[in-house]
Amino acid sequence: MNAEEIFRNIKRKKSFLCVGLDTDYKKIPRMLLHKEYPVFEFNKQIIDATQEYAVAYKPNLAFYEMLGAAGYMSLEMTVTYIREKYPDLFIIADAKRGDIGNTSHMYAHAFFKTLDFDAITLSPYMGYDSISPFLEVNGKWVILLALTSNAGSEDFQQLRIEGGNKLFEEVICTSAEWGSVNNTMYVVGATKAEALTGIRKLIPEHFLLVPGVGSQGGSLKEVAEYGMNDRCGLLVNSSRSIIYADVTNKFKDAARQEASRLQAQMEEILSRRQLI
Amino acid sequence: MNAEEIFRNIKRKKSFLCVGLDTDYKKIPRMLLHKEYPVFEFNKQIIDATQEYAVAYKPNLAFYEMLGAAGYMSLEMTVTYIREKYPDLFIIADAKRGDIGNTSHMYAHAFFKTLDFDAITLSPYMGYDSISPFLEVNGKWVILLALTSNAGSEDFQQLRIEGGNKLFEEVICTSAEWGSVNNTMYVVGATKAEALTGIRKLIPEHFLLVPGVGSQGGSLKEVAEYGMNDRCGLLVNSSRSIIYADVTNKFKDAARQEASRLQAQMEEILSRRQLI
Repeated sequence: MNAEEIFRNIKRKKSFLCVGLDTDYKKIPRMLLHKEYPVFEFNKQIIDATQEYAVAYKPNLAFYEMLGAAGYMSLEMTVTYIREKYPDLFIIADAKRGDIGNTSHMYAHAFFKTLDFDAITLSPYMGYDSISPFLEVNGKWVILLALTSNAGSEDFQQLRIEGGNKLFEEVICTSAEWGSVNNTMYVVGATKAEALTGIRKLIPEHFLLVPGVGSQGGSLKEVAEYGMNDRCGLLVNSSRSIIYADVTNKFKDAARQEASRLQAQMEEILSRRQLI
Repeated sequence: MNAEEIFRNIKRKKSFLCVGLDTDYKKIPRMLLHKEYPVFEFNKQIIDATQEYAVAYKPNLAFYEMLGAAGYMSLEMTVTYIREKYPDLFIIADAKRGDIGNTSHMYAHAFFKTLDFDAITLSPYMGYDSISPFLEVNGKWVILLALTSNAGSEDFQQLRIEGGNKLFEEVICTSAEWGSVNNTMYVVGATKAEALTGIRKLIPEHFLLVPGVGSQGGSLKEVAEYGMNDRCGLLVNSSRSIIYADVTNKFKDAARQEASRLQAQMEEILSRRQLI
């Protein structure tokens, strides 16, 4: 999927919502626990309930790895389910990997071949050769951590480099040369909305993946105000506020309602910007 | 295992060798491919053949993840095998994770509870709250990427921060305050041996995990010269040069010979430094 196709899906669905599948085994409604793969079963129902309001899904690998081989199976089944039933959805592995070239080739294989993800989040700390093996896979995307939504983003990302840029700006400027607007996105936390203006000066055209709306407190309105471009350029992620909107057997309806609520806000923004 | 216990094992085995289990399915001798879990079978034989010369083993997660659920099973079986048969060995998950606190808690559970690793490699880019959930687990270690062995380490790690430090030095100085010498190590590539002198000024007492000796061209002698402290303070990793020393059915003997050769060099260094 290239940037134009993502934008086309955004216009069609009037939404730039990404649903984060941070599926915590302990929070799954009891009624699903007798299934062989409760995490997959939960995801499947969440996806069915929310897919008309979303353009992307983002399983968070930690939540699957903590369950061992069974978690891996649930992840694989989730990706396959989306791919087969809803082929227009963009699937992001929130994995935050990054390793030497030899190893990154293996990860690229793991996420883009063994599993059929469209994109993977990566940490830029190890530089070009830790990222390039992913960029070499045709039609797939890397999503680089730039300015994250957590408090710890102050520790290193905001350090000022000799010459004037902050580290996250240096990461953006340097890595924007490695790929293109059709295979590179950046993670910018919704809690840093005011920084989006500066980031848009550096990369006016790239898509940004923006987590932190909802449970983490980021504002959708501000994110759109400072970060939206003329092809939308945003995938805004919400995880817990959707998938745990209700933890009883009404979880599907509650998730649908919350996704629908966010979609309606997004539609209004897209409409106001005359993008739809 | 605390730092003193690691040093005790180093003295007893006269070795500070870590064997990297970057087990590539495609390079496993054919004779093992009929087994249900060939990767585990290969690891088991490599471990049996080399354990008397090594103090640590380091499975590289990418190589297991690319095989999906079967790879995860091989990883789990490998960790369990080492833990039960050779309880003195230190087991490192080379995972290079790093995420917001909520997710890092999940990863800590995945690597320290679901699997019983002693340590995990982490990327520092997301700062304190991405690391602290791992530090909270008693008796376990974090190994932070500082200055890596690949060419891409020039891109960001070596940038100079306003005030004087390079980024990797800033990472070391800041994060050394988060934990202690009993739960924090740093990755410093063997290809950057000359930088070890400077790093030792910042953290004289911490253990360093040094990959890149062997296939990546780093020199054991230089690493020891610049990086060793009075409790050794080094775990030197070699992966491919040991586990693929021979890819026929003589792989065990060849791996043993290569591990033994490295151990002999390490013994000489430890002896010259009067640490044994």
